[in-house]
Amino acid sequence: MDVLIDADTIRSPELRHEVPTAIVDPFLYGERDGAAFAATSALDAASIAQARPDLQQLDLFTDLGLNDLIPSGREAALLEIRLRACRAMGITKAAVPPSFPLATAEHLRAGGIELHVDRELFSTRRRSKTPAELRGIWRATKAAEAGLKAAAQALDEAEARDGILHRDGEPLTCERVSDLVRQAAESHGAALATFHVARGPQTATGHGPGTGPIAQGEPVIVDLAPQDRESACFSDIARTFVAGEPDPEIAHWHALVLEAHAQAIANVRPGVRGSDLWNAAADFFEQHGFHTQRKPGETVMEGFPTALGHGVGLEIHEDPGVGRTGTEFAPGDVITIEPFLCRPGFGAVQVEDLLLVTADGAERISSLTTGLAPGDLS
Amino acid sequence: MDVLIDADTIRSPELRHEVPTAIVDPFLYGERDGAAFAATSALDAASIAQARPDLQQLDLFTDLGLNDLIPSGREAALLEIRLRACRAMGITKAAVPPSFPLATAEHLRAGGIELHVDRELFSTRRRSKTPAELRGIWRATKAAEAGLKAAAQALDEAEARDGILHRDGEPLTCERVSDLVRQAAESHGAALATFHVARGPQTATGHGPGTGPIAQGEPVIVDLAPQDRESACFSDIARTFVAGEPDPEIAHWHALVLEAHAQAIANVRPGVRGSDLWNAAADFFEQHGFHTQRKPGETVMEGFPTALGHGVGLEIHEDPGVGRTGTEFAPGDVITIEPFLCRPGFGAVQVEDLLLVTADGAERISSLTTGLAPGDLS
Repeated sequence: MDVLIDADTIRSPELRHEVPTAIVDPFLYGERDGAAFAATSALDAASIAQARPDLQQLDLFTDLGLNDLIPSGREAALLEIRLRACRAMGITKAAVPPSFPLATAEHLRAGGIELHVDRELFSTRRRSKTPAELRGIWRATKAAEAGLKAAAQALDEAEARDGILHRDGEPLTCERVSDLVRQAAESHGAALATFHVARGPQTATGHGPGTGPIAQGEPVIVDLAPQDRESACFSDIARTFVAGEPDPEIAHWHALVLEAHAQAIANVRPGVRGSDLWNAAADFFEQHGFHTQRKPGETVMEGFPTALGHGVGLEIHEDPGVGRTGTEFAPGDVITIEPFLCRPGFGAVQVEDLLLVTADGAERISSLTTGLAPGDLS
Repeated sequence: MDVLIDADTIRSPELRHEVPTAIVDPFLYGERDGAAFAATSALDAASIAQARPDLQQLDLFTDLGLNDLIPSGREAALLEIRLRACRAMGITKAAVPPSFPLATAEHLRAGGIELHVDRELFSTRRRSKTPAELRGIWRATKAAEAGLKAAAQALDEAEARDGILHRDGEPLTCERVSDLVRQAAESHGAALATFHVARGPQTATGHGPGTGPIAQGEPVIVDLAPQDRESACFSDIARTFVAGEPDPEIAHWHALVLEAHAQAIANVRPGVRGSDLWNAAADFFEQHGFHTQRKPGETVMEGFPTALGHGVGLEIHEDPGVGRTGTEFAPGDVITIEPFLCRPGFGAVQVEDLLLVTADGAERISSLTTGLAPGDLS
């Protein structure tokens, strides 16, 4: 099956997997009979050649005659050059990823190129990580662990005054913890774009960042997905901490979350479906009286309202799913297991770890301890 | 004209412009008769509500019945939920950006929704920056200037031994300068994903990063495009430095580049076309005996082989173009002016600044001095 991808390698995981280097401007990548081609700007030619020495580059000017197209304007020229590139590559029919840009698809189809969205093909390719990608995921995980340790240390060292945590005489806020987390994580060759340090009821509201002073006894969720700079691969791990005495309900939830976490991890192996793990976790939480997506509460964010995890690689959330629609694991998959319990206006508990699916089970990529007390993290 | 965007706000500038907050997972955004809607996960609802209080959210489960679709599998469910969302929004015909995902387009069209790629509509929206975006571009520029200053200081303070620059007893490499640049830039609330510090002949090869020890007298190009963390907007500026005595040819090129740079900046105003500026620069460099895209040399990367600049905002390279196909400037455009001269195997010179197009001219957003001597930068 011939292949076309029209993207840059910063935003397209499909293309970054094929051309493992940072290219900001979109270009057309093709495969004909297994040979790789790309229509490239001279500004990017050296970087692409270094990342994929086997790939045959077609220069926009000298090979594809961009100069003739200048009078038609930039956008028309960039579309037509893609059609010329297909012809130069000898591609008449190709599989494309679901994200293939509609504008390019319409122009190529009008020019007689057949395109078929093939989600499975590109998903399968990316589930099987390259050694460089796997090394990147491990590095990103070290960065995430460094971030969690920085947060735990700050919470552990804080002094409580009137129930509010303080550091250096000032209230310890989610924002201050976030700064420490970023500093620690980013010193490990990773970038921390979106992450959250949330406290108390904020922990029950989802993906947004937290704000304000942290109180003694309230749950703090630190959820970090650093992206390794070299490989562009992510990690994704989380812990819940309580400085001081936890609310008994939070402590109870935490024990249940750890049980679901251990149970799921013990059952990860090739052939098991993500939905099997999700259903087992949902059974468990429902038995303990919690709402799930199968038995919704009055609000959506209540009980165990989420997936149990997700694949991780060149995207934070990718195949294989570990939710209600999760499919069979295969060796080489990288997934999170992250049971989550919450109640609006009260709080939440989550413990998230990263696993590599092996031939007969799973290897833990992240390996920090899971206690609520920040001083215990190691 | 009704509008649909199917994207996340990290990778889609079109969607980030409409929903100015970081949302990692793709969702369908729509506008019907000017009212905004989005089909959202409960995990993202709070963040989206904060960024766009006027936007009406349709919850995937409670409003769109995602539960019924679970048996059909994740991908089919996510496509069908988008069709349901269009119907709930009352959208039957919509403009979409060129990057609209082909898989969604095919599913919506099969469901009777008419989609028309309208590049101009989304480009026009983004060219007119919000106040928050403009503040982000200014912050990112401060970050870039801090990075350039760090590079200049390292070059200026270095000691030459046998013609190679040294710092703390070790050769000063592009990698070491890059680390200093990153540290300085990122302490200003920006992330520096792709940038380059290149030396000698590497400066003539395009966008790739540079490597190895820097020699006295060779040109060093530092080109930085930090992304402001809060707004996701970019800056993009560059300088060429030479530690020690520059090669006379480099000094000559630098004088010409500065002349082209000043000439272009003096002519930026609404109604002027990017192509007018490019043609003037090409005329100027051709008069001085250089190749351009109009009069190519033997290799592509020779003489003045590039555009003169580009628009900057939620993408590093966006409208309006400042190359051969550049269109008319309008007040509010943010553009670079970055004349570049190069010869393969020898080196290059570039000076890049960022401008805001005003009602009757242009305001400089970046304002560092332009000398070759790193010690002179201020």
